[in-house]
Amino acid sequence: MAKPGTDKDGTVFDAERGIPDATVARLPVYLRALSTLAEDGVITVSSEDLAEVAGVNSSKLRKDLSYLGSYGTRGVGYEVKVLVEQISENLGLSQDWNVAIFGAGNLGTALAQYSGFASRGFTVVAMFDADEAIVGTTVSGVLVRSIDDLETVIDQTGAHLAVLAVPGPVAQEICDRAVAAGIRGILNFAPSVLQVPDWVQLRKVDLSIELQILAFHAQRAAADELVMAKELS
Amino acid sequence: MAKPGTDKDGTVFDAERGIPDATVARLPVYLRALSTLAEDGVITVSSEDLAEVAGVNSSKLRKDLSYLGSYGTRGVGYEVKVLVEQISENLGLSQDWNVAIFGAGNLGTALAQYSGFASRGFTVVAMFDADEAIVGTTVSGVLVRSIDDLETVIDQTGAHLAVLAVPGPVAQEICDRAVAAGIRGILNFAPSVLQVPDWVQLRKVDLSIELQILAFHAQRAAADELVMAKELS
Repeated sequence: MAKPGTDKDGTVFDAERGIPDATVARLPVYLRALSTLAEDGVITVSSEDLAEVAGVNSSKLRKDLSYLGSYGTRGVGYEVKVLVEQISENLGLSQDWNVAIFGAGNLGTALAQYSGFASRGFTVVAMFDADEAIVGTTVSGVLVRSIDDLETVIDQTGAHLAVLAVPGPVAQEICDRAVAAGIRGILNFAPSVLQVPDWVQLRKVDLSIELQILAFHAQRAAADELVMAKELS
Repeated sequence: MAKPGTDKDGTVFDAERGIPDATVARLPVYLRALSTLAEDGVITVSSEDLAEVAGVNSSKLRKDLSYLGSYGTRGVGYEVKVLVEQISENLGLSQDWNVAIFGAGNLGTALAQYSGFASRGFTVVAMFDADEAIVGTTVSGVLVRSIDDLETVIDQTGAHLAVLAVPGPVAQEICDRAVAAGIRGILNFAPSVLQVPDWVQLRKVDLSIELQILAFHAQRAAADELVMAKELS
């Protein structure tokens, strides 16, 4: 089992792998920034430039990357391609992940069509819905199966990650069945708080939280404008 | 104008309002946890229980809430209803926000139907699409307008926040026009990095990042299981 430890500055980290959770959370952000740079034909990047694209400060970025054994070269920076490989490997993206999407409504369909998943090693291998009118149709080349067949289909397709885009009232029941069938990670879009066993990873996406943070900053900016206008008058 | 300052422990904060940015980012999470508790009929909550529901440590939660002037009562905790009002006010949610959704495809439609927005003070007042087959239809009671009428419709509806659910290649152009028409905050779902002026707030939602973090933890948990199995054999 992984042994949690504490860094000299108090950061909690996994002693065996040596990567703090906060660093883990930033790795995909770096990967995304690096992918953008790679698409633009960039070969090497300084920590300052990468930090700016990723939206973090550069000393934090250097420390984060040092956990992966990447220190860059003075005056040159990091090799984009090498760094992409190191981060991908650390994120487990050198293996492909099979994903099942629960709910083939507008959100489930939008997620199935989301190009960002496939390009990052996630393959949607199954979709489920309870509506008999939708079951049997195809979304982005994936056949929509009946939720009644959950156990059989998860077993056949080897899906280990699930995306829940189902109505709130049925989310927990479907979550329980998915976990029993072998799902090890769940991304929850349903408006409910789910209970899962310790060994299952759960992340909740609440889009209204993003909108609330945006509204807060927009309000603050508007208040600043008002103060400036008064100062000028 | 707001004057940024530095707390005694080095936290950067807005000196006039006194709320650090990291605290601001957590306020909606607390609000969501409190709403869940209120729905369950909970009247008061300890910092430990609220911290657990919100997924932060309780000392951080107490410090965050102290910025709002909320210290709780020893042995009793926080009054759920009072705290909801304090946070809402600080987040600017005591005022309603008019939101325009750009793109009436599966994602835009799912977002328009998203019940979490309306219940948190966000009203979708306008939807736009470029596809003439969709323009004129109604999504969740909102008429889909032509993207050609962007300026007129934003002006008429008084929308100040925008949700971008459009294809990547057209996102920047639509963003520029929306900002010129008076939009002050943008939640971007399009797969592109947008440039906005300083006074416009921009947040990017990248769903594959959530899935990558999930995959990382799932991989790590699987590796732990393997180690445990070996130790037991």
